[in-house]
Amino acid sequence: MPIPAERVVARHLDLRRRVDASGADVLLVQHLPNLTYLSGVIASAGLALVARDRVVLIGDSRYAVALTKAAAGLPHVSVELVPTGASYDETAARLVAAAGWQRVGIEAAHASVARFRWLERWMADHAPGASLVATEGVVEDARVLKDAWELDRLREAGGRLSEVGKCILPRVLAGRTEREVAIELESAIRAAGFDRVAFDTIVASGPNAALPHHRAGERRITAGDLVVVDFGGVLDGYAADLTRTVEVGTAPAEHRRWIAAVAGAQAAAIDTARPGAAPEAVDQAARDVLAAHGLAERFGHGTGHGLGLEVHERPRIGQRRPAVPEPPLAAGMVFTVEPGVYVEGQGGVRLEDDVLLTGEGPERITNVPIG
Amino acid sequence: MPIPAERVVARHLDLRRRVDASGADVLLVQHLPNLTYLSGVIASAGLALVARDRVVLIGDSRYAVALTKAAAGLPHVSVELVPTGASYDETAARLVAAAGWQRVGIEAAHASVARFRWLERWMADHAPGASLVATEGVVEDARVLKDAWELDRLREAGGRLSEVGKCILPRVLAGRTEREVAIELESAIRAAGFDRVAFDTIVASGPNAALPHHRAGERRITAGDLVVVDFGGVLDGYAADLTRTVEVGTAPAEHRRWIAAVAGAQAAAIDTARPGAAPEAVDQAARDVLAAHGLAERFGHGTGHGLGLEVHERPRIGQRRPAVPEPPLAAGMVFTVEPGVYVEGQGGVRLEDDVLLTGEGPERITNVPIG
Repeated sequence: MPIPAERVVARHLDLRRRVDASGADVLLVQHLPNLTYLSGVIASAGLALVARDRVVLIGDSRYAVALTKAAAGLPHVSVELVPTGASYDETAARLVAAAGWQRVGIEAAHASVARFRWLERWMADHAPGASLVATEGVVEDARVLKDAWELDRLREAGGRLSEVGKCILPRVLAGRTEREVAIELESAIRAAGFDRVAFDTIVASGPNAALPHHRAGERRITAGDLVVVDFGGVLDGYAADLTRTVEVGTAPAEHRRWIAAVAGAQAAAIDTARPGAAPEAVDQAARDVLAAHGLAERFGHGTGHGLGLEVHERPRIGQRRPAVPEPPLAAGMVFTVEPGVYVEGQGGVRLEDDVLLTGEGPERITNVPIG
Repeated sequence: MPIPAERVVARHLDLRRRVDASGADVLLVQHLPNLTYLSGVIASAGLALVARDRVVLIGDSRYAVALTKAAAGLPHVSVELVPTGASYDETAARLVAAAGWQRVGIEAAHASVARFRWLERWMADHAPGASLVATEGVVEDARVLKDAWELDRLREAGGRLSEVGKCILPRVLAGRTEREVAIELESAIRAAGFDRVAFDTIVASGPNAALPHHRAGERRITAGDLVVVDFGGVLDGYAADLTRTVEVGTAPAEHRRWIAAVAGAQAAAIDTARPGAAPEAVDQAARDVLAAHGLAERFGHGTGHGLGLEVHERPRIGQRRPAVPEPPLAAGMVFTVEPGVYVEGQGGVRLEDDVLLTGEGPERITNVPIG
């Protein structure tokens, strides 16, 4: 579903203000999800220049048709193709020099040292007076609060991924290999209309379930296993991400205690997720429940991550890092809540749902029974 | 298939020399394929420090087991986990300070401006005398020449991907949607033992075939279509990449002329690919054949790209860019050769095979009949 032109215009207006506030005359955007946000185009290469009076989309011949379509009917948007034999950097630099922009913002988290230095040298030679300004998260700050169109896409993605889960999770059976389950799940994700899987599907059975980032291998699922199944899909560019832990046959009582503890931790964390709450409070709520079950040491990763044009984006739902404070949660944010318990050599449990914050509180946009 | 420890040791010895030659005391490696090259571990986050006397693999708790396994039995390799609440950068910086390294290489093509500045500030405060040195392609220079183990993996990946193609390409039939074909192909890739698809499968039918980076949509394939099918798989971390163009029913004579021209261009390009040849000569060989068919203007992209731990890596097989000269081809390089013809509104053709250069010349490691 293509993004409506009026949403693109609204984003551009908002970004202009943000670029202005960053102190730059123009922002050179290079992070691909940011380019998709600006243009609706999903590409494997590209740049954009966002200035007060215009947006220039820079692409190569592969994307000429898609970019031209994205700019159609938007008088403030133009498309510039990288000439054969030239580079993206050179094309962008020439546009900067021609426009006479002086303070050129560059995305500090994404621009490489090599690109920064090349542009600095080029501008010294060809655009006297122009200088680079390292900016932090200008487009990401806008992206963290989803607009109504994005919320629709994310709800749709969460709903479809849940249907896939309901259909496939009962087929995590003894005798099948992890890989067979993963293949079936990935086919079902594609058949449900997703553009692609969001990441390599995890099917971690038995002792493998103790490894939070095990993938899916040749191990045959066995009665008594816990199987962590973590899967995601991208719909119109937007990611949904879901984890369930399946008991195959009858799980030992200990394993069932882990599942109950993680389910309790997840419910407490989601309940804490409200506009104005600190992300670390959500993380702490999960940890407190696990600690009450004597499982505090068994949960080594953060509680969640933002979802949108990236499968890992802001907000970060984890323990407080004094050097990188995370702003309070706000309506319009979408993120995962995924506590877990991992016991080396024995197994593990993770439960993950996607949560959308409205003014009223958390809304689960994934929906699959636990266990 | 895990990489043999002696291959890892050989890579480390080679990289030490390269780090030395770069003028750095230690290289901070952050590019994930480079980390896989160093360790055999496929992870979504990590760092490594490569110094004269040791290699330190830095990871978070998710990868503790995999990294410990990778370092087992290698006395010069150690594993450092990022403490809870700390960052990767901080963990690496503390190791640098503790070791007393002075000239710290950082991968200019990958390190962000933000990381560079953070490290610079941290070292000024905590590691007086230490400074950052921007390095260019130290690990990539090693990776471009594949070792025997890698060549085996790439041959195996090319062979398996060809079998998938032989099985599925005859099923590109009128009445099916592009997406249906893509889903079947992706399932077959996974079932053939690949870790994952290497990129979103392209099934571009009819007028969509004119768009080199069309994906796979809801269009129903129709008799008379050309259908460009571009698919890839990753096996033990190594990518194979293959494109065929299928005529559905009877193609117009013009379309058959395009196929013949592209097949001729591809054969000429592969024939030109020999140790010592300039990559641009391979590209030019393809262009010359297309020009002889009056199709010079219909081929807008480069002729090929290297394959290995990345699906696009060096060498770049394209027109000469004076600012970024490409070294001559050499035995041990593996790359695609994929000329095409694209006619907007009408259709297109692309043929892509993977080529491994030996001392004797080019060896095709993919093998599917054309048409």
